[in-house]
Amino acid sequence: MNLLLLEDGDFTAADQVRLSGRRLAHMQEIQQVAVGDSLRVGRINGLMGHGEVTALTSSHAELSVQLSTPPPAKLPLTLLLAMPRPKMFRRILQHCATLGVPEIILLNSYRVEKSFWQTPFLQPAVVRENLLLGLEQARDTVLPKVRIEKRFKPFVEDQLPGLINNQLALVAHPGDYPACPRGIDQPLTLAIGPEGGWIPYEVDKLIEAGMQPVQLGERILRVETAVTALLARLY
Amino acid sequence: MNLLLLEDGDFTAADQVRLSGRRLAHMQEIQQVAVGDSLRVGRINGLMGHGEVTALTSSHAELSVQLSTPPPAKLPLTLLLAMPRPKMFRRILQHCATLGVPEIILLNSYRVEKSFWQTPFLQPAVVRENLLLGLEQARDTVLPKVRIEKRFKPFVEDQLPGLINNQLALVAHPGDYPACPRGIDQPLTLAIGPEGGWIPYEVDKLIEAGMQPVQLGERILRVETAVTALLARLY
Repeated sequence: MNLLLLEDGDFTAADQVRLSGRRLAHMQEIQQVAVGDSLRVGRINGLMGHGEVTALTSSHAELSVQLSTPPPAKLPLTLLLAMPRPKMFRRILQHCATLGVPEIILLNSYRVEKSFWQTPFLQPAVVRENLLLGLEQARDTVLPKVRIEKRFKPFVEDQLPGLINNQLALVAHPGDYPACPRGIDQPLTLAIGPEGGWIPYEVDKLIEAGMQPVQLGERILRVETAVTALLARLY
Repeated sequence: MNLLLLEDGDFTAADQVRLSGRRLAHMQEIQQVAVGDSLRVGRINGLMGHGEVTALTSSHAELSVQLSTPPPAKLPLTLLLAMPRPKMFRRILQHCATLGVPEIILLNSYRVEKSFWQTPFLQPAVVRENLLLGLEQARDTVLPKVRIEKRFKPFVEDQLPGLINNQLALVAHPGDYPACPRGIDQPLTLAIGPEGGWIPYEVDKLIEAGMQPVQLGERILRVETAVTALLARLY
């Protein structure tokens, strides 16, 4: 935890918060803070700054906070992701929040197993918790948006062209395609397939909607590795 | 498993192998292969090709293999990695094998907890198993070398300059440093610190040994994310 994230409900006054639960345990067990210590804090979806510990008991901590620094910029990106396997999904949410992805659209695909959509990791509270873990890591406060689109064809035909809006749009897919560009400095819609990749029909539909296929070389990456590798190369 | 890796001991003739255990279970339960099916195979540290299933029972599979394709090129890289937390270490071994790292040197650092060196994941058989998982993913056959250097100062003073050998050498560290370069096409020694980063003394020693400090931006990445992000940006 490189940043202690504060919920609106933690505030007892404009510059006072009261914490318990996971964050208190982390402060006491990992950070071993004492009264008087100063911690990096940030208000969820708001500013960052410092908090001084003014009280500490086994049940709660009180901090006096000063927030004045804006969070780091997000990537100018919409990530279109075939719904991953649940355990990997959890880690990908964290990675995406850490790397600064502002919006993730979870899409169905032929190779997405139906059971993936049943995972408890898709419950809004669990999604939020994993995004917060990623934000704490990166020192960011702004929660990415996560949207679910379970119907591939209607989404790609009816919504994707408007989303791309004539800006750069890439679909990552192994094959005889141009290499993924580097260090682009522009808004992007990026589509990443499931383990095993998009099926040819899906690649065709994504291209029809305005996406250009690109590849990352002959090594086949796991989805979570591909997400990080693509974002690191593109931005 | 995108490639079925074959051990020397699996060969019953120059073009025949007999498999059991994890690989047999994977073939039967995940891939649901039948006699006559053809699979991508590769001989560990050797060539890749195809294997035709000639026999299949509950205890073993027999394949007739044809190996003629060389494995993909490795990155021209030596990775110097502060020993990570065990669970992350396991995943990093897999990532590194997948991404084509040919050599990993595990180094001590002030922020490496002593207990990390006691992990069973450091046993040679377990290191090998995790590297194989990464190779299977990428479709590569050549095992990366993993070396352990538990004494930071003697290694960095006495061995690192010779290892760098006047070629490019970078230490990734958050701070007021130049941005990490992109798309370099040359041999590199890359040092990545522990969670919490190298301490200033260590950064100074690495610079003295010939490394240039570079940074990846203001977001703090977990070590496993940083490994993938740096390699994807550099190559």
